[in-house]
Amino acid sequence: MKEFDMIKRFFTEQLVKRKDVVIGIGDDCAIVQPDEKHSIAITTDTLVAGTHFTHDADARGIGHKSIAVSLSDLAAMGAEPSWVSLAITLPNADEQWLEEFCKGVFELCEYYNVQLIGGDTTQGPLSITVTAQGVTLKDKYLTRSGAKPGDWLYVTGNVGDAGLALQHLFGNVELEQRFVDTVHTKLHYPKPRILAGQVLKDYASAAIDVSDGVLADLSHLCELSGVGANVVLDSLPLSEALTSTLKDKATEFALSAGEDYELLFTVSDDNKVGMETAMTNVGIDIQCIGQINHSGKITTTLNNQPVQLEIKGFEHFSNAQ
Amino acid sequence: MKEFDMIKRFFTEQLVKRKDVVIGIGDDCAIVQPDEKHSIAITTDTLVAGTHFTHDADARGIGHKSIAVSLSDLAAMGAEPSWVSLAITLPNADEQWLEEFCKGVFELCEYYNVQLIGGDTTQGPLSITVTAQGVTLKDKYLTRSGAKPGDWLYVTGNVGDAGLALQHLFGNVELEQRFVDTVHTKLHYPKPRILAGQVLKDYASAAIDVSDGVLADLSHLCELSGVGANVVLDSLPLSEALTSTLKDKATEFALSAGEDYELLFTVSDDNKVGMETAMTNVGIDIQCIGQINHSGKITTTLNNQPVQLEIKGFEHFSNAQ
Repeated sequence: MKEFDMIKRFFTEQLVKRKDVVIGIGDDCAIVQPDEKHSIAITTDTLVAGTHFTHDADARGIGHKSIAVSLSDLAAMGAEPSWVSLAITLPNADEQWLEEFCKGVFELCEYYNVQLIGGDTTQGPLSITVTAQGVTLKDKYLTRSGAKPGDWLYVTGNVGDAGLALQHLFGNVELEQRFVDTVHTKLHYPKPRILAGQVLKDYASAAIDVSDGVLADLSHLCELSGVGANVVLDSLPLSEALTSTLKDKATEFALSAGEDYELLFTVSDDNKVGMETAMTNVGIDIQCIGQINHSGKITTTLNNQPVQLEIKGFEHFSNAQ
Repeated sequence: MKEFDMIKRFFTEQLVKRKDVVIGIGDDCAIVQPDEKHSIAITTDTLVAGTHFTHDADARGIGHKSIAVSLSDLAAMGAEPSWVSLAITLPNADEQWLEEFCKGVFELCEYYNVQLIGGDTTQGPLSITVTAQGVTLKDKYLTRSGAKPGDWLYVTGNVGDAGLALQHLFGNVELEQRFVDTVHTKLHYPKPRILAGQVLKDYASAAIDVSDGVLADLSHLCELSGVGANVVLDSLPLSEALTSTLKDKATEFALSAGEDYELLFTVSDDNKVGMETAMTNVGIDIQCIGQINHSGKITTTLNNQPVQLEIKGFEHFSNAQ
């Protein structure tokens, strides 16, 4: 993984800096400004068979997730999703598979009024690359870099369930039958938090979607904002499925598990009440899980006591300091 | 190939039709209109190792071509290239390979003042997907669908050399040493006809880039314009490399060989002189190779006599009628 993080650096060493590119590589999306009134958010994600899904995974789920992952990036920028381009590489033209795949793609596109405007179909090992674009009024978007010391840290929904489904898929945990559907739906049919992003662009100081895990994504946000954060572990929103399956390991697991596609965001003390009211009005569950500070580090507390954690996402950030 | 053309139809069966999407699937690019003044052209292309380039192909060339193929689509729409997103899937992080690849990418981006704004790096079998975007003033773009009977048919540069290089690579033809560099450069380092597209958007009635071969791409243009065309075979612009290597088979070869990334375009009789003058002024070689008609078919003449051709690209169109 780190090896592939490193590759990204190769692509940042370019000489061209256009005036109409407001944000380039490094946030959830790039932001370009073709005119005086609008900003366009653009994001690209690839899913590769064997890496991001198993070769026998359900085609409709792959279609859904291909789109959802990119729309989640638009949600994290507060952009209204508009257009997607889809490049699909397939070993052969299996009509039944394609029909199911397209069902997954179009269900999500229709729900969010997103139009598939183009792409490419090629022969080769199965992989899917989606470029999604969304529009906002000029400068009316969220970034990872706006968090300030004193801001409150929130997350939508709950975290860890997608990771739990993955562990179940790998045969590493046993899952009570009553939880199976819910957690697997969370993994295979994540719902991009578009509405939350729309609300948050009026209130939040920074946002990121939780794809790598709460601590890893929080570390990206802190790094780009030049701040630190304390996470109150008692406050992490965990499902009954997670707590009753993993018991006392649930919290630690939820901090590092990825693929939840929830939004992690920060709000100033002044905007706290307004944001909470607005979220309640649209029926989105949120949870305050900590606070931003000057430290430049991520710390955690449990029962008001500092706790030392040894988790990948956390280490990654420590090394970067 | 036809199998994969068919797949594209799966993706056109969607319910969402947004008002800000002027052109969806089917042209060289999609066209969207976020505001009242601009149109944005968007195109996505995938290159897969083993299908679009050999596994041992030169990394700098792969980088160049990944970008060039998409910029060529923008050229065919008359758009000014602005932003590219690059998704690369790699089996492993080979630094030397990546450095060469990036050189190819950035050389072209710098030449055309295009900024790489994002993308994704993933682990898996080598493939590259580029989404390129370009801006034009509102409605000031070229399409495949505007050709009218009586319009003259032109092509930029010469055709067939990239295909010749491919045959040489496969060991199917012998090439004199003095031609090797030129034809292989044409195949591996194609120059997107951006400037020609910029000029043509003031003169041409329709345009397409020659990626599948003159006849195949002409058939796409005729199909979308609802017209036919006659190609004057004596007029095809062929290089000395091609004619001296393939002799009397050069013309037929040049009609079906792909990957030239020249522009094929149509101009009304009224705009003919203006266009030719403008192209001379910017130093771009063009050649009139025929005329658009009502027939709904593509015909060819040699020495003013009709000639029957049996070529793939031609059949494909015949079947579609």
